[in-house]
Amino acid sequence: MGGRADIGVTGLAVMGRNLARNLARHGHTVALHNRTAERTRRLIEEYGRDGAFVPAERPEEFVAALRRPRKIMIMVTAGPPTDAVIDAFAPLLDPGDLLVDGGNAHFHDTRRREAALRERGLHFVGCGISGGEEGALHGPSIMPGGSAESYRELGPLLESIAARVDGEPCCTHIGPDGAGHFVKMVHNGIEYADMQLIAEAYDLLRKVAGYPPERVAETFAAWNRGRLDSYLIEITAEVLRHTDAATGRPFVDVVADRAEQKGTGRWTVQSALDLGVPVSGIAEAVFARSLSGHTTLREASRDLPGPVRPELHPDDAHRFADQVEQALYASKIVAYAQGWDQIRAGSDAYGWDIDPAAVATIWRGGCIIRARFLDDIRKAYGGADRAGRPATLLADEGFRTALADAQRDWRHVVGTAAELGVPAPGSAAALAYYDALRAERLPAALIQAQRDYFGAHTYRRTDRPGTFHTLWGEDRTERPA
Amino acid sequence: MGGRADIGVTGLAVMGRNLARNLARHGHTVALHNRTAERTRRLIEEYGRDGAFVPAERPEEFVAALRRPRKIMIMVTAGPPTDAVIDAFAPLLDPGDLLVDGGNAHFHDTRRREAALRERGLHFVGCGISGGEEGALHGPSIMPGGSAESYRELGPLLESIAARVDGEPCCTHIGPDGAGHFVKMVHNGIEYADMQLIAEAYDLLRKVAGYPPERVAETFAAWNRGRLDSYLIEITAEVLRHTDAATGRPFVDVVADRAEQKGTGRWTVQSALDLGVPVSGIAEAVFARSLSGHTTLREASRDLPGPVRPELHPDDAHRFADQVEQALYASKIVAYAQGWDQIRAGSDAYGWDIDPAAVATIWRGGCIIRARFLDDIRKAYGGADRAGRPATLLADEGFRTALADAQRDWRHVVGTAAELGVPAPGSAAALAYYDALRAERLPAALIQAQRDYFGAHTYRRTDRPGTFHTLWGEDRTERPA
Repeated sequence: MGGRADIGVTGLAVMGRNLARNLARHGHTVALHNRTAERTRRLIEEYGRDGAFVPAERPEEFVAALRRPRKIMIMVTAGPPTDAVIDAFAPLLDPGDLLVDGGNAHFHDTRRREAALRERGLHFVGCGISGGEEGALHGPSIMPGGSAESYRELGPLLESIAARVDGEPCCTHIGPDGAGHFVKMVHNGIEYADMQLIAEAYDLLRKVAGYPPERVAETFAAWNRGRLDSYLIEITAEVLRHTDAATGRPFVDVVADRAEQKGTGRWTVQSALDLGVPVSGIAEAVFARSLSGHTTLREASRDLPGPVRPELHPDDAHRFADQVEQALYASKIVAYAQGWDQIRAGSDAYGWDIDPAAVATIWRGGCIIRARFLDDIRKAYGGADRAGRPATLLADEGFRTALADAQRDWRHVVGTAAELGVPAPGSAAALAYYDALRAERLPAALIQAQRDYFGAHTYRRTDRPGTFHTLWGEDRTERPA
Repeated sequence: MGGRADIGVTGLAVMGRNLARNLARHGHTVALHNRTAERTRRLIEEYGRDGAFVPAERPEEFVAALRRPRKIMIMVTAGPPTDAVIDAFAPLLDPGDLLVDGGNAHFHDTRRREAALRERGLHFVGCGISGGEEGALHGPSIMPGGSAESYRELGPLLESIAARVDGEPCCTHIGPDGAGHFVKMVHNGIEYADMQLIAEAYDLLRKVAGYPPERVAETFAAWNRGRLDSYLIEITAEVLRHTDAATGRPFVDVVADRAEQKGTGRWTVQSALDLGVPVSGIAEAVFARSLSGHTTLREASRDLPGPVRPELHPDDAHRFADQVEQALYASKIVAYAQGWDQIRAGSDAYGWDIDPAAVATIWRGGCIIRARFLDDIRKAYGGADRAGRPATLLADEGFRTALADAQRDWRHVVGTAAELGVPAPGSAAALAYYDALRAERLPAALIQAQRDYFGAHTYRRTDRPGTFHTLWGEDRTERPA
């Protein structure tokens, strides 16, 4: 019974096509389907030599081509198109078959779909895939959610095509239902924060140290040989080194300074707000992008006054660049700590039991934020059982030491940005988070007192349990509330 | 036909009770209804002398007591209870009758309810009410949405019980469907931001200037005689002046430093993310509250290293306090500018045509953020038609001048907070927003270039129209995209 294909891919735009090719190159027989048959035909024509493909025009034909339990990878645009594909294929499947959504779905949608298909005996796997087109073809980082049973069927296939670091595949079972898409979402949020911090470091090197782009490129290339070694730092140097052919100017100077975004950064912050997790680094990154595109506001604000920036002596500029490296590294630790805090909170809230070390492990390769740094996070969480995990990455011994070494320069860089009028919202937010977490007392006490004053919202005391209310409008005595 | 009551109030917990009493005191005959009749009975017993009340036990009786078109004010907990009340009363009403939701509903819910009731010929008015219990009794700030027709019926009643400033009522028709609850939500978001900025100023005065609470209270009281004159500054001084009777210690020092929140701050940021509006001041305030309650993380981070804070000479402390006033005022301008930007964006997105000057006008009294400052905002927007409005409050001549005067001290305070390890995320975010808006070039250009590098997301150029992609993996030539 059933066909001979190990897995099917429906939706053959560039991501689906590259994933299908990757599967075929790893010896799997791949059934192919696309809404328009032309794309299927072209894939076979151009890349047929990659491996064993079984093209199918009609859904029934596609389904019939699959070995049981059938595995169908859906690679279409997130949203209604995903539901349309599910509606088209689910009736053709049998209990135990798997539908895998490899798009960037919102994890709430994935939870909804998983529950609906589970009722029908089908496995639905929301599967985060990071690494873009190149990653899909050569080895992405893969974050499948869904049932443990589905992972037993699907895991070996996915692990075979994932990126590998030190022999380990960048793919693991994240947790039930929406856990995979949730973790992929947080990955993208961290990516936003990391890119914003890099952009601020670049901006400071240009505007404070006075470095031209090629000098900044050299600086980033040097950083990339140290603890900041990462894909994003590497490509930053590449981009800054590039000269625009049309004008002969540094490429970065001819690119319009309006950053765009897809929804995942925004989703991350909205989810963090639901979970009550402070992710200021990600939020500032999302806001910085939207601000950059607010042309009307920027034009109206162009002539707001700022400070005069002194020209730095080359030695001072060089020293400042070193301080920026410290600030970038420390801010990066905070941004990642916030992201992992959100993963913990999401895991607790939705009952996913996500292993934080496993997430770090599979982000070491294949995805946009891949970096040596992820190995340090893996170590911070690694081996520890639930009770032994650090409450926050900041409390891990290694990161603690790095922050202790960095903090003087970090403060100087954030302070300098403020004094000299260079916007560094991500770095400033990271430092404020660090200082707030370590504060013995926070002014939140004043806020609680104000809330009790104007809204009778009550407060707790430091010296005994219970909630209390002061009769502010009367004799200001205190009452248990 | 119909009864003799001008309006009915259902839901007689403290907000509903006080609103009913306020209406009665202004000469309106008020029908009363509550799920349990005991509350109705007690209201009449304790406050019957306030005016003309018509108690009703059953919904039919309540509806029969109302003059036509009937006006029912729903004062129950937001969420499912509101829907339950609507479901109970709507079938008893006739076309043209009004249901008014005075709770803190999410504006999306209000839009849904308004559309559903409009189908049935009923007016549904989502009505933001600010000012807490005291405001409800003595004069709140009232933000009704809904149709213009409904406001013609309801407006005179609401205006008669609203706070008044310079003879003008703090109540106006905000706009169709959810506009009133939207504006109330942004009000609360701004309130969060304002309270956070005040808390940071307080914290800096204590930790950097070394002021004890009573000295901070004096400072705030002095500020309250100047341009910062506002309810929140006033009560801050009151709270800081208060001594805890049980311990003899300053009250603020015995209050637990874990700030709580209801949903509206979070909603504001989530809505701003949907609208693509950077509201970093509100977001940092929401995050600061949630961070304060993260006991586990705070305990794990308590011994993270920070800088040593030098003791300031009294003269320097005094000078620093003046600089904090400048920083607080400048940050406050930014926080309000962000809030008004969200109102503009919401108005555009949902087709509400909200008058920004009218919003400032009705927030001058009755609500938590009432302040002299609101009059300045009203002037900034006042009189101007749509085209003549400033694109951002920062660009208004008066605020521009204030920011120009403040910026040196503002930078110094934010820089000092960073250097000395006092968390000031709201102030830092405000300054970064200011510097980002006025920047000639933002590092968003680098972000766009990175996105094109790793995801072929394309970019725009500064020198000609169109979108482009560079073939990074090949010969790095540029192609129109």
